[in-house]
Amino acid sequence: MIYVRNAWYVAGWAHELAAEGLASVRILNEPIVIWRDAAGGLAAFEDRCVHRLAPLSLGRCEGERLRCMYHGLLYDRAGRVIEIPGQDRIPANLRIRSYPVLERHSWIWVWMGTAAEADEALIPPVVGMDRTDYIFAHGQLDFAAEARLIYENLLDLSHISFLHSESLRHGEIWARERPKVTEHERSIRSERWFRSGSLNNENTEEARDIYYYWDSYIPGVVISYSNTYPVGSADALNGGAPDLNQAMRTCTGSHAITPLTDRSSRQFYILAGPHRGDETVYDSTRKAFSEDKAMIEGQQRNIDTLPDQRFMPTTADRAVILFNRLVEKLVSEEAPQMSATAPPLGASR
Amino acid sequence: MIYVRNAWYVAGWAHELAAEGLASVRILNEPIVIWRDAAGGLAAFEDRCVHRLAPLSLGRCEGERLRCMYHGLLYDRAGRVIEIPGQDRIPANLRIRSYPVLERHSWIWVWMGTAAEADEALIPPVVGMDRTDYIFAHGQLDFAAEARLIYENLLDLSHISFLHSESLRHGEIWARERPKVTEHERSIRSERWFRSGSLNNENTEEARDIYYYWDSYIPGVVISYSNTYPVGSADALNGGAPDLNQAMRTCTGSHAITPLTDRSSRQFYILAGPHRGDETVYDSTRKAFSEDKAMIEGQQRNIDTLPDQRFMPTTADRAVILFNRLVEKLVSEEAPQMSATAPPLGASR
Amino acid sequence: MIYVRNAWYVAGWAHELAAEGLASVRILNEPIVIWRDAAGGLAAFEDRCVHRLAPLSLGRCEGERLRCMYHGLLYDRAGRVIEIPGQDRIPANLRIRSYPVLERHSWIWVWMGTAAEADEALIPPVVGMDRTDYIFAHGQLDFAAEARLIYENLLDLSHISFLHSESLRHGEIWARERPKVTEHERSIRSERWFRSGSLNNENTEEARDIYYYWDSYIPGVVISYSNTYPVGSADALNGGAPDLNQAMRTCTGSHAITPLTDRSSRQFYILAGPHRGDETVYDSTRKAFSEDKAMIEGQQRNIDTLPDQRFMPTTADRAVILFNRLVEKLVSEEAPQMSATAPPLGASR
Repeated sequence: MIYVRNAWYVAGWAHELAAEGLASVRILNEPIVIWRDAAGGLAAFEDRCVHRLAPLSLGRCEGERLRCMYHGLLYDRAGRVIEIPGQDRIPANLRIRSYPVLERHSWIWVWMGTAAEADEALIPPVVGMDRTDYIFAHGQLDFAAEARLIYENLLDLSHISFLHSESLRHGEIWARERPKVTEHERSIRSERWFRSGSLNNENTEEARDIYYYWDSYIPGVVISYSNTYPVGSADALNGGAPDLNQAMRTCTGSHAITPLTDRSSRQFYILAGPHRGDETVYDSTRKAFSEDKAMIEGQQRNIDTLPDQRFMPTTADRAVILFNRLVEKLVSEEAPQMSATAPPLGASR
Repeated sequence: MIYVRNAWYVAGWAHELAAEGLASVRILNEPIVIWRDAAGGLAAFEDRCVHRLAPLSLGRCEGERLRCMYHGLLYDRAGRVIEIPGQDRIPANLRIRSYPVLERHSWIWVWMGTAAEADEALIPPVVGMDRTDYIFAHGQLDFAAEARLIYENLLDLSHISFLHSESLRHGEIWARERPKVTEHERSIRSERWFRSGSLNNENTEEARDIYYYWDSYIPGVVISYSNTYPVGSADALNGGAPDLNQAMRTCTGSHAITPLTDRSSRQFYILAGPHRGDETVYDSTRKAFSEDKAMIEGQQRNIDTLPDQRFMPTTADRAVILFNRLVEKLVSEEAPQMSATAPPLGASR
Repeated sequence: MIYVRNAWYVAGWAHELAAEGLASVRILNEPIVIWRDAAGGLAAFEDRCVHRLAPLSLGRCEGERLRCMYHGLLYDRAGRVIEIPGQDRIPANLRIRSYPVLERHSWIWVWMGTAAEADEALIPPVVGMDRTDYIFAHGQLDFAAEARLIYENLLDLSHISFLHSESLRHGEIWARERPKVTEHERSIRSERWFRSGSLNNENTEEARDIYYYWDSYIPGVVISYSNTYPVGSADALNGGAPDLNQAMRTCTGSHAITPLTDRSSRQFYILAGPHRGDETVYDSTRKAFSEDKAMIEGQQRNIDTLPDQRFMPTTADRAVILFNRLVEKLVSEEAPQMSATAPPLGASR
């Protein structure tokens, strides 16, 4: 499977990495150490000392520097070796690969492609937990499956009608009607109305129309918005898009799917809603995630048993197809520049 | 290793699959879902939805149909897709591979070869638990080993003298004297007398001669019969075969060895005897099975360490050799017709 | 990775194998059964019966013979098959591979190369627990790593300053000053002084200079000696080697690193000191071993992720480089004679 390298991947939670803390992560099968210096700044290096390939994540932050705790090589924040204990001369230009890294919207993001092209503007508009206008639930989930199967799950929400029939109890409306799907530069948008009464689990005291849309960004970040309007709004607009600023209420969910290796992935999620009444929704959402996990891991086992078997798309797969085309297009554009530096995904499983 | 495909393989216990129940099994490395419709009928499909390869065994039986619970495709009993939620048009001839399946003698049997050649007459005469003239013990055991090593264990029972010296305590008679071995169309028969006093663990109050024979059927089903006669019968017949209808008492054991993958197998067994006194025998038989498991899994580890190492047959291996020749002959006869449809065993381990 | 075959490898502890006992070990990825006959003599065979490759380590010692407990083949101490139950004729020269084996200095040693070249004089001078002039601590530790990474850890003790900064608390002296390194026929010696006060954790009531040296023998046995002298001795000798017979006190540590497979190894160790006061040292040494294990297994994971990545030696790696050159030289000398008999390391992982 192919993934875009010139993109920001979520590596973890900003609040979990304290000053002088180190974290070992794996993205696109590359071992990476992310560390925060004494002043709070982030750095990300390959997690592999130049000397004997020991993990730097077993090292020690010393102020603004990182020391390998096997034989003591010391690195500055740029990845340069500035001390080899017991040795006066240090080879010129001895440095480790470092990755552009930053924190934004509660997450730590690592740029896996050409450093010169790292562009903060490409970070998707995740609703982070620093926002004061929402209350939040957050978490993460590991899958024994390739990342592609997980974001494809999110791109085609028709599965909610079946896979989540017990947990979310939305009924068959998700599967019976297709959303409108549009392509954007680095994302695919899907959008649709739920007219009052069309979702099984509605609170009948609180009838409303819902305008639901979700944006799936490269490399695999999906942000959904559930916007509430007075009953009749969908019909009044003849099914067209409403003024988002006029929504009575908006709930969002942000999901980042990070490929750890060829066959393992991590989903990070932040669920945000305007008031406390959404907490039971969070419980059923977590149950739905575990249903996704069982299905996707079963799918992966089938794929691995017969690798040549192909999918047979239905009309529900339109967003999936457009997103994968976008991935292929971006990958083909970056391929030449990547080949020199990028270790092959899947070099070891 | 090669296995005959035009054969019935045991997939599980008929009594364990209730109406509208689903079971996920793997045979010859193929994932299969076996399901029972509301009326009690069995069907067996590849366990892989045509849409996105999700496991159908996570699906739901709806009367006489099976629904994939990922995105809701609905299959009839023949494996045809009869509904794609939200989509009017269904591609012509869209269907999943289905396998001939039936229940007989307490077991569910799946035909892994060409459906047109599935022949119920080829099901071996297992003594199932529906028989009222016996009392039964039954069970199953998983091996981290290829099926061949397990049925070879059953084809050459000389190992009882050594491997089961503590559990079965039969003494060395199994190893010291060879059985008569004969070839049949789809089985190998081994047969022999135990004269009174030759088995160490005999109940001295109940002296008798025993005529023991066992049939090893393609693809790996072994049925043994222990027939008791008055002392002196073996000598009176000069070691020849007795009239089986004249046996004072007969105990049987049926063993089905099913290859799950290249390196994992399941043994199903039904032990049948005429009265309750055999229960302690069942305990020692189960202990013997665990001895087989330890030895066979050790054998497998050795084979995998040095794959080119070859066996050095002894005269005790005659039934093993004849059975394996029969497998090769049947496989060579079916090879051309199989190549198009059969996924390769070992496509993934 | 390459290992010398014409060498003695440690297989286990002599005191753990009782008369008529069997032990299954794996060295250089070869399964080996070591057994002790009724009279106490040792023998080592490949752990794989000639008949059907069953593990002989599941067999039974019968006086001076070993019986395979699958189908009963009986072997004499030289590895010859001397009985096949139920069969009169035994193929000529039917025998199993046997390995030279002996016990010395508390350990059982197996010669993995050409039997004719097995030379007891090549067993390194380990300080075994039969010595009455020391008190001992001993143990073993398994690593999910190739043996090379473990003995390289012992060849370059500069890591003590960093990796063991919390457990051994020696300070940076190990890393700041290089030992003198010399090549010998089948070993590398490293040696150095610690002047009084240079080790952080010194007992200030007991000031002394320490002359520390360690010999790293083919195939991976490291023996260290810590010799205590009066304060000022190092200076009086101008840093030169002292008279070892004049040491006030000597502590030693013997470490044997045995490659089990390509990616797993076992470290056996015997720590010896002249009096009971060393027991707290043993505790911190065991803690240090667990630090080594975590670092080395991390190093191995990095190597497996990017197999082509190379080490960048520092001046601390001199002993490592010389030892590996010695390995290569010895391997190149033995290669032709080995090729016929030696199963490839890594035939199965």
